[in-house]
Amino acid sequence: MGKPAPISPFAPKALPDLPAITGVHLATAEAGIRYKGRTDLLLAVLAPGTSAAGVLTRSKTRSAPVEWCAKHLPAGTACALVVNSGNANAFTGQKGRDAVRITADAAAKAVGCAPEEVLIASTGVIGEPMEAGRFAHLLGRLAKEAAPDAWAAAARAIMTTDTFPKLATRRAKIGQAEVVLNGFCKGAGMIQPDMATMLCFVFTDAALEPGALHELVARSADRTFNCVTIDGDTSTSDTLLAFATGAAETRGCPRIDHAGDARLKSFAAALHDLLKELAILVAKDGEGLTKFVTIEVGGAEDDRAARQIGLAIGNSPLVKTAFAGEDPNWGRIVMAVGKAGEAADRDKLSIWFGDMLVAVNGERAPAYDESVAAQYMTHPEITVRVDVGVGNGRATIWTCDLTHGYIDINATYRS
Amino acid sequence: MGKPAPISPFAPKALPDLPAITGVHLATAEAGIRYKGRTDLLLAVLAPGTSAAGVLTRSKTRSAPVEWCAKHLPAGTACALVVNSGNANAFTGQKGRDAVRITADAAAKAVGCAPEEVLIASTGVIGEPMEAGRFAHLLGRLAKEAAPDAWAAAARAIMTTDTFPKLATRRAKIGQAEVVLNGFCKGAGMIQPDMATMLCFVFTDAALEPGALHELVARSADRTFNCVTIDGDTSTSDTLLAFATGAAETRGCPRIDHAGDARLKSFAAALHDLLKELAILVAKDGEGLTKFVTIEVGGAEDDRAARQIGLAIGNSPLVKTAFAGEDPNWGRIVMAVGKAGEAADRDKLSIWFGDMLVAVNGERAPAYDESVAAQYMTHPEITVRVDVGVGNGRATIWTCDLTHGYIDINATYRS
Repeated sequence: MGKPAPISPFAPKALPDLPAITGVHLATAEAGIRYKGRTDLLLAVLAPGTSAAGVLTRSKTRSAPVEWCAKHLPAGTACALVVNSGNANAFTGQKGRDAVRITADAAAKAVGCAPEEVLIASTGVIGEPMEAGRFAHLLGRLAKEAAPDAWAAAARAIMTTDTFPKLATRRAKIGQAEVVLNGFCKGAGMIQPDMATMLCFVFTDAALEPGALHELVARSADRTFNCVTIDGDTSTSDTLLAFATGAAETRGCPRIDHAGDARLKSFAAALHDLLKELAILVAKDGEGLTKFVTIEVGGAEDDRAARQIGLAIGNSPLVKTAFAGEDPNWGRIVMAVGKAGEAADRDKLSIWFGDMLVAVNGERAPAYDESVAAQYMTHPEITVRVDVGVGNGRATIWTCDLTHGYIDINATYRS
Repeated sequence: MGKPAPISPFAPKALPDLPAITGVHLATAEAGIRYKGRTDLLLAVLAPGTSAAGVLTRSKTRSAPVEWCAKHLPAGTACALVVNSGNANAFTGQKGRDAVRITADAAAKAVGCAPEEVLIASTGVIGEPMEAGRFAHLLGRLAKEAAPDAWAAAARAIMTTDTFPKLATRRAKIGQAEVVLNGFCKGAGMIQPDMATMLCFVFTDAALEPGALHELVARSADRTFNCVTIDGDTSTSDTLLAFATGAAETRGCPRIDHAGDARLKSFAAALHDLLKELAILVAKDGEGLTKFVTIEVGGAEDDRAARQIGLAIGNSPLVKTAFAGEDPNWGRIVMAVGKAGEAADRDKLSIWFGDMLVAVNGERAPAYDESVAAQYMTHPEITVRVDVGVGNGRATIWTCDLTHGYIDINATYRS
């Protein structure tokens, strides 16, 4: 598989220290599904009654585990989560569905619940038949070993060729009770040619009914993970799952059943912030990146239109290669706004690099100085702001540049 | 501007020899708009009464010349066409509109018609103010020099950093009369960082009313130029114009006013074929390409959906880098079908590389042999066929791979 890609220059210097969450126990194993000498299997054991919610890829070719989650998430509870890396179990037909069933059965037996209360996610090669027999027998041992402090190990086990594990933690207040939110995720870099998966898991001891949890997660996902793009390629397996054990009830935390409940203000903000941190970590591990780029779009018809325009900019190979070349080529941003298919008034369009106005009212800014703009482009973190002049819609997109590293990583033959 | 990109390995060995078309005279000049030591200005003088039709970019940030054409094309006639390379006159505000007006006035004076009968196209840098004074004074001389045989020179003058000129010719019968169709185009490779333009011009001596010409051109453009993608970046300046001088009437060619007229069958087929050849030449000059890729999509809900799926495959950086790496990574094609947003039945999805079935009924084909597939991927020209299993919609997309060459070309600083 060639030599591993170098660690992203935006990798955090140290991993955050995630506290235990009552009702969540984690264990990992080396199942040898595809990788050698590293963990590739994660079991999370969840206290009975844990609320579960999530959002899944809208791909028309979604994987067998995604279909399983789509079927069983509406019940709103989970007792276990099984995640494997190395094989996405996508486009694997009946064998794939069988593998999911075998996994669910084995995990259910290991933790003592119904198979339908086991959620499953897989990441790795697409189209390779999945042999659940390679790891299902390990789940019994993992259930016994599961520990409350294995967060970093869990984040490592689900990596494909991510260059660093991605974890974050927050605290929030619900009523008088303090609750914890932990999360980890992987990928979006699709760092190995046949990987195409973003997975994210969030755990809290807050006491939330599944409907409330779902609404909070879906709302935040829309402005965090759904605003990250590395290369515009949507996975067969994208999965964001959230689990609320409710353990904080014993500390006086009220059980809440509506996302609109005013007591959720602090929690909703913490959840959003946690997902945003994780989403940004994904962008910062973009394949071969040398620049982390934030694109702020304003003045769009609505927020959805703003996001489409931001994605058109963030996915444009010409814009991305200009960033890689440290070229303040704002004409390409004009092009990308134009092609986005959303309302934009060319003659009111303004563009900033950082705080520097580079274009205004449909032409180059009078004070534009290319040498100053070029200097700005040498920074590792770049912000582009665009106002398209038609409304109040806003969005922020996080992305990266398109470099020789991306080609190296993705044009390498798999075997 | 760095060293020029190497000539595309798919450049034709020899340029076709285009016959004269009565009523069309061409002349070119070195105006020094941006380039040194090469032509960058084209004047086509058209016989009075020439029908004109065309299709223009749908970009929301379209250039001043595109707006001019959009305003004056509906009148359906043209006496002159002026094209410059080196500056796209896009995002140039009032100065840009003034430059168009100056150009139209100068060309009108040179050929003796109204400014509204002059069509204009510009290709090159976006956002750089356009000084029409640099070349408007040359048009009088060009009108005098214009000759019926300057097709190759015309194709060269409109190149930006295309690596070869793109020309094609066809003959067709209307009634008993033979008519000629000549065409040339540039770009879509966007071979220099700040270029983002596809231009195509077609000339014929057939006698067609503008409405009929427009319908034929629009219909064929939809299945030719609108099915080419290099990198998914839509220009501010895409322009396809067609001119019918009607000179063949003197040879007994009937004047036709409806695209549906049965006598246009041969002409419509020839026009379509000509545009397809030119569109394929554009894909074959894709920036940095090493593979020319044809994507045939069938079984879609309708032809539009098929095209969207084909474009999702053709624009996927992961698919394109797999081609570059000669990796038969068909899982990425599954991914791209899934993300296209169009109806697709995963469990009926089939994929072929050339004639080789690689995936069928939602999983890897039983007889799939990766080494045979890998061998196929070493060919310079690759065909991927996909059936998405929901209907009868079909489309063919022409594209290329994504290579280090693309990054080299586009991440190079402009100055």
